[in-house]
Amino acid sequence: MKEFSFIKEFMKPLSVSDEHVVLGIGDDAAVIRLGENEELVVSTDTQVESRHFPVGADYALVVARAIGCAVSDLAAMGAQPLGFTLSLSCPNLNVELARRIAEGVAMGIERYQTPIIGGDTVQGPFTISVTVMGRVEAGQALRRTGAQDDDDLWVTGTLGGSAAALEEIDNTDIGNLSALDQAYWQPPCRLEFGQGLARGIATSCLDLSDGLAGDVRHILQSSGLGAEIDRGRIPINPLALGRVGRDASFELAFQGGDDYELLFTAPASKRQEVESLSLTSNTPVTRIGRLNLNREILLIVDDGNATICTNSGYGHF
Amino acid sequence: MKEFSFIKEFMKPLSVSDEHVVLGIGDDAAVIRLGENEELVVSTDTQVESRHFPVGADYALVVARAIGCAVSDLAAMGAQPLGFTLSLSCPNLNVELARRIAEGVAMGIERYQTPIIGGDTVQGPFTISVTVMGRVEAGQALRRTGAQDDDDLWVTGTLGGSAAALEEIDNTDIGNLSALDQAYWQPPCRLEFGQGLARGIATSCLDLSDGLAGDVRHILQSSGLGAEIDRGRIPINPLALGRVGRDASFELAFQGGDDYELLFTAPASKRQEVESLSLTSNTPVTRIGRLNLNREILLIVDDGNATICTNSGYGHF
Repeated sequence: MKEFSFIKEFMKPLSVSDEHVVLGIGDDAAVIRLGENEELVVSTDTQVESRHFPVGADYALVVARAIGCAVSDLAAMGAQPLGFTLSLSCPNLNVELARRIAEGVAMGIERYQTPIIGGDTVQGPFTISVTVMGRVEAGQALRRTGAQDDDDLWVTGTLGGSAAALEEIDNTDIGNLSALDQAYWQPPCRLEFGQGLARGIATSCLDLSDGLAGDVRHILQSSGLGAEIDRGRIPINPLALGRVGRDASFELAFQGGDDYELLFTAPASKRQEVESLSLTSNTPVTRIGRLNLNREILLIVDDGNATICTNSGYGHF
Repeated sequence: MKEFSFIKEFMKPLSVSDEHVVLGIGDDAAVIRLGENEELVVSTDTQVESRHFPVGADYALVVARAIGCAVSDLAAMGAQPLGFTLSLSCPNLNVELARRIAEGVAMGIERYQTPIIGGDTVQGPFTISVTVMGRVEAGQALRRTGAQDDDDLWVTGTLGGSAAALEEIDNTDIGNLSALDQAYWQPPCRLEFGQGLARGIATSCLDLSDGLAGDVRHILQSSGLGAEIDRGRIPINPLALGRVGRDASFELAFQGGDDYELLFTAPASKRQEVESLSLTSNTPVTRIGRLNLNREILLIVDDGNATICTNSGYGHF
């Protein structure tokens, strides 16, 4: 059973409305009302050795990356981070491992601008779970829903780097990561940009964890709209392009995932505000397409030829 | 390396003060300031198969219990629950397992009065991590620190039942749990009582997870005080007493842990308020001893004989 079906069939029905719960299971994060003007944003992210990170990897890298992946959900909601808790299960907590974990926590705190507030450490198979909390002004949290017909579709940063790095991840020497390795191990921190988007710019937003194809689909399903993406505008990570070439790097960007960049929609009238937020927050941003009324259909346009991208993937270039 | 040393040496130094972080690593839960009058209480609890729950146990029981253990930290802080997130790693999520998990979540929501707001499900060795969030009025959260000389020492409920049940846990048939099995699988919900204690009654509070001896020690270390406990007043679970006898059941209460009852201190002037809160919240409560100035020394008084309880345990009756 896929996680998606499990959540939809079994967990979501248990997430009832409540005077405090503004947004329950189903978005990047949950939103809870707190007082008159403030909302709490909460998200949790769990990673297991060999499934979510390579066996034998430096735990400092693993821990810092797990913090980055979780904080990315706060960025996607436009929230200010308040803190995170870290639950660690590891087989044998000796002093050397404790040092690596502590270094990872310190790197995570520094890079993702979020304090550690608690945690739990138990003996067991290596698993790491990070829960992040942030705040937004009431009603301001960005969601997956909200995209409108004719909105522009934008992404931050470049895509495909993380998946390209993961294809031959053999270097976890923390002092000597290549620029491409960093695309996997050091997810970007888009907090400032996300907070800016939440001030009336974006109509919907999420972070790219499943690959562009899957994540655009989340926006389309939430809005009932379609989208057209200009293949030539997709900002492919140049190091991925250099390593695997044009078509393979496009596939990595499109299907690979783990980029943790923001994907968002905004009306065409906001283009200048997006560009100016990009400058002030030092966040590269690219307009890759536009929404339309073609119900949940994703079209990829390449040199004038349009291809429908289906659920079963998109491998026909 | 023990979890305690890991936290003290490696994690606590990373938990810096912050304009928002009122209480970081080290208590039952963290406290974060939110607006003028409100604070957020956050705690996380991780459980691993075979270490924290028996292999082959019904996952509905495991999940519901994990929720109860985490919510217990909110009770110990005097907080009102806002919601919890559930991170699950399990080897093979088929429909039957999904149903057991969903039943456990539903039981947990019902019994511990806390809505589910999100989570994450991944494939991996069976591990469950619950993060709970609650609210308190600013400055009202109960802590481990705060006990005063001459304060009474109180516990809710009865002790030793969970440890007695765990000694021969062979029944995880959810429809047919014995009363003693329930002491392990269904931690009590002391939210209402804890919230009452936070309205100016208790000077310190925590939930009993390490056994009475270890948890009293947490209060003594936090306050620099000593305590005298009247052995005859310790409320031993009568089913545990019936199964293993007086001395062994005392050991289970004292060293066994996992009772998730509240242990708290309050001035003698508050006795009537404690009793009256006990009645209105339908929570049994027992005064078991008193604090004194004997720096961090725990004395057990039994029929007029006093024994010093040391860190290395207390097995000399």
